[in-house]
Amino acid sequence: MQFAGSHILSIAQFERPDVEHIFTVADRMQPYAHRKRVTKVLDGAILGNMFFEPSTRTRVSFGSAFNLLGGEVRETTGFESSAIAKGESLYDTARVLSGYSDVIVMRHPAEGSVAEFAAASRVPVLNGGDGSNEHPSQALLDLYTIRKELAGRGRGLEHLRIAMVGDLRYGRTVHSLCKLLGLFQGVQVVLVSPDELRMPGEIVEAMREAGLDVLESDQLEASIAHVDIVYSTRIQEERFQSQAEADLYRGRFRLNQSVYTANCEPNTVIMHPLPRDSRNNARELDDDLNDNPNLAIFRQTDNGVLVRMALFALVLDVADEVDRHARDVNWYTAGRF
Amino acid sequence: MQFAGSHILSIAQFERPDVEHIFTVADRMQPYAHRKRVTKVLDGAILGNMFFEPSTRTRVSFGSAFNLLGGEVRETTGFESSAIAKGESLYDTARVLSGYSDVIVMRHPAEGSVAEFAAASRVPVLNGGDGSNEHPSQALLDLYTIRKELAGRGRGLEHLRIAMVGDLRYGRTVHSLCKLLGLFQGVQVVLVSPDELRMPGEIVEAMREAGLDVLESDQLEASIAHVDIVYSTRIQEERFQSQAEADLYRGRFRLNQSVYTANCEPNTVIMHPLPRDSRNNARELDDDLNDNPNLAIFRQTDNGVLVRMALFALVLDVADEVDRHARDVNWYTAGRF
Amino acid sequence: MQFAGSHILSIAQFERPDVEHIFTVADRMQPYAHRKRVTKVLDGAILGNMFFEPSTRTRVSFGSAFNLLGGEVRETTGFESSAIAKGESLYDTARVLSGYSDVIVMRHPAEGSVAEFAAASRVPVLNGGDGSNEHPSQALLDLYTIRKELAGRGRGLEHLRIAMVGDLRYGRTVHSLCKLLGLFQGVQVVLVSPDELRMPGEIVEAMREAGLDVLESDQLEASIAHVDIVYSTRIQEERFQSQAEADLYRGRFRLNQSVYTANCEPNTVIMHPLPRDSRNNARELDDDLNDNPNLAIFRQTDNGVLVRMALFALVLDVADEVDRHARDVNWYTAGRF
Repeated sequence: MQFAGSHILSIAQFERPDVEHIFTVADRMQPYAHRKRVTKVLDGAILGNMFFEPSTRTRVSFGSAFNLLGGEVRETTGFESSAIAKGESLYDTARVLSGYSDVIVMRHPAEGSVAEFAAASRVPVLNGGDGSNEHPSQALLDLYTIRKELAGRGRGLEHLRIAMVGDLRYGRTVHSLCKLLGLFQGVQVVLVSPDELRMPGEIVEAMREAGLDVLESDQLEASIAHVDIVYSTRIQEERFQSQAEADLYRGRFRLNQSVYTANCEPNTVIMHPLPRDSRNNARELDDDLNDNPNLAIFRQTDNGVLVRMALFALVLDVADEVDRHARDVNWYTAGRF
Repeated sequence: MQFAGSHILSIAQFERPDVEHIFTVADRMQPYAHRKRVTKVLDGAILGNMFFEPSTRTRVSFGSAFNLLGGEVRETTGFESSAIAKGESLYDTARVLSGYSDVIVMRHPAEGSVAEFAAASRVPVLNGGDGSNEHPSQALLDLYTIRKELAGRGRGLEHLRIAMVGDLRYGRTVHSLCKLLGLFQGVQVVLVSPDELRMPGEIVEAMREAGLDVLESDQLEASIAHVDIVYSTRIQEERFQSQAEADLYRGRFRLNQSVYTANCEPNTVIMHPLPRDSRNNARELDDDLNDNPNLAIFRQTDNGVLVRMALFALVLDVADEVDRHARDVNWYTAGRF
Repeated sequence: MQFAGSHILSIAQFERPDVEHIFTVADRMQPYAHRKRVTKVLDGAILGNMFFEPSTRTRVSFGSAFNLLGGEVRETTGFESSAIAKGESLYDTARVLSGYSDVIVMRHPAEGSVAEFAAASRVPVLNGGDGSNEHPSQALLDLYTIRKELAGRGRGLEHLRIAMVGDLRYGRTVHSLCKLLGLFQGVQVVLVSPDELRMPGEIVEAMREAGLDVLESDQLEASIAHVDIVYSTRIQEERFQSQAEADLYRGRFRLNQSVYTANCEPNTVIMHPLPRDSRNNARELDDDLNDNPNLAIFRQTDNGVLVRMALFALVLDVADEVDRHARDVNWYTAGRF
């Protein structure tokens, strides 16, 4: 695809070379995100960081990514505006807000809203999540993390073996990741969930049509024995009739250090879209994994900054100029990741 | 007036040369707002964008305008602060906040609050709206838009013919615009509203004293036949006893493409302070006008950035230095307005 | 202490030379905070200004201080994030957010939360207030103000005489200030409060062990007769059984111009952590003091910017490089403090 001036709305718009191009650019962002260097390539540019649904993590990640390219950020959090709260059309909102910035990130609770907004915008729009529909930068950062973790282990996205564990029915992130995996060859996926929370049939079918080797299971320990990646997701108790029933599932799909050691191959990577459950007695990823060097959950969020920097650089067509506007930093950076 | 270091609180403080000076400076901001060039004239300066009443649109417009001059923005949205919520005096709030920035934009729900705040501030304060009282940058951007649209049609603010349509009783924007029009010669104004929502008598009287030629009407079609500008405003249903009654008025003052074609002179400009009503069956400006090149409602909001840049440059006394701190941009701008 | 890369969590971590070093650096920040010069020493650096409890004043002060050093600010206000609201652990939140910025300021309602957060953060964390526990930058700016006010009067922190007035039981700021005063020699403190709101016994004891000369009193006028500083705090009516009872105390500890003139030595400095009570008939610091040049309450908040700039410069290890990245300003600054 042509990135310059494009909206980034859905992972469906990417072919495999597009994904690889994003990842190559993301790799080149590393010295900037790691504070070895500073670039001012987007000095004077403005991001409209429009979060009509709160999300501190994603909002700050996009904002920091834009700052790291030298740009400024104007933003909104929630439906504070009387105009939008009063039901102003997305067309009008988009026409107005796109006059205030060079690129917009939008999150909105309604499915399809970001695409509708983008159609009226005069500047590129990046989908920061539209309800349960799409959140393309999350899917990209997940796949980018898998690629990077595997590269450190001498493996690649081809012939990847991955187990996805937890709520596969409602989890937007696993749906999107599965679609992206369809762009690669020889991928094996084990889907581990309670029966009530199985991956929707049409997604499984699409995965098989795309050439993925898909297995379904409700047994955690056997399923994680021969994979490169365990991608865990939260069992959301609000989806069950009682807390007791929810606890039953949570108990069964709980990964901790002893389950990991007893079942996984050495160096199996552990991922999670966050937040993980914080209740010590019922969490899907135990705190005792925090010192396991294969726990990649915070490398995922770090990588999110790289991927979002790449998306901004691509749609604003400055990916090849980042280094020309750069210098080394002069403040404290010891101990940075 | 002397702009450097002044507060901008009310349109009453402007003489005609002041308005023309603001507009001349706003014109010179165009290459920066249109992203042909970047200036750093306010590099290191801080705007305190203090919105004690939410307004995404106005807040982001002011913030972007300041960023476009190279400055930084610190801001607040709503009465989050316990200090102000607990009833701290505006005097104390102003003394404190003016130590944190070089200029402050303030919006506050109480009439007169911004002037009281400004009296205690140690830096220039721009009124971003104090209840139903004043919102001077909105009136200025409306008049600036009229001037710019007419210039493209070979006409000027002298001998302007304008129809104002809708809720003229409560609409702060039309009140302020009418006052500003009093600075020019030979202006004809047709006020079109339901009887219950007529322009307040004292404003009509003041307009006539200022030399405006004022007509009042409750008929849309005849009133828009011989004007340069139709300035439409929303009929607010909360002002009526029943929704059915409100719908009646909305139905009568609805401008769409066929009403426009059947009644208006060619190239009659359509304006609106936004938001426009979003209900398709009862809106004062129909969606079918969106492709009409004379619909200027989004050029109004674009112009708001220019006018606000001009106000900042004037009160901080850098209007003549903007170009000296400038360079061309290096990011994607194709398709920008 | 070693500042570079350190967290600033509690005043207990400072020795006297540390406090003096912070103040020396703060002094050097004056031309930047007073807009005589602009520095870009932190150009490209990002502050994560994470206020999980609202506080406009403190949040904007930290943000402006970082901007004044040339850095960018990403921020959050309140528990908007579903992740943290859903009970994500502080460990996870810290691991994630510290990937987005170079330094974090955190305010959180729970005591001890900021220290727990800092333990997991990969970048320096400054405590912006954790419940009733610590708010070290406030204590530092108070002491810095005392030092600066006294220097202008030919006196120093040694042999300081200070009266603290009002709610000494729950006031976090007076507790912290008393601890800091223990680092200096020959300090005399008069604690003036209603009996129900006396300074906690263990703090009084610790002050005496640290060598302070401490007197307790419930009489305002005699207590402020021979001091260099009157540090007043708000009597919080929510702590009393009835408003009438609260008003009784407020009436007794009210400082106004005539009480000041009748009792205080010339040039006695008046301080307050703000907000002061805004009810004219019952406030602890009367409006008629606003023109008294010894009223230092807004110099306190101005000094807060200097102290916070110093803390950022120290933990990011650029304190000695601020001047090397500086230039004079080119915008309006007449009338600045």
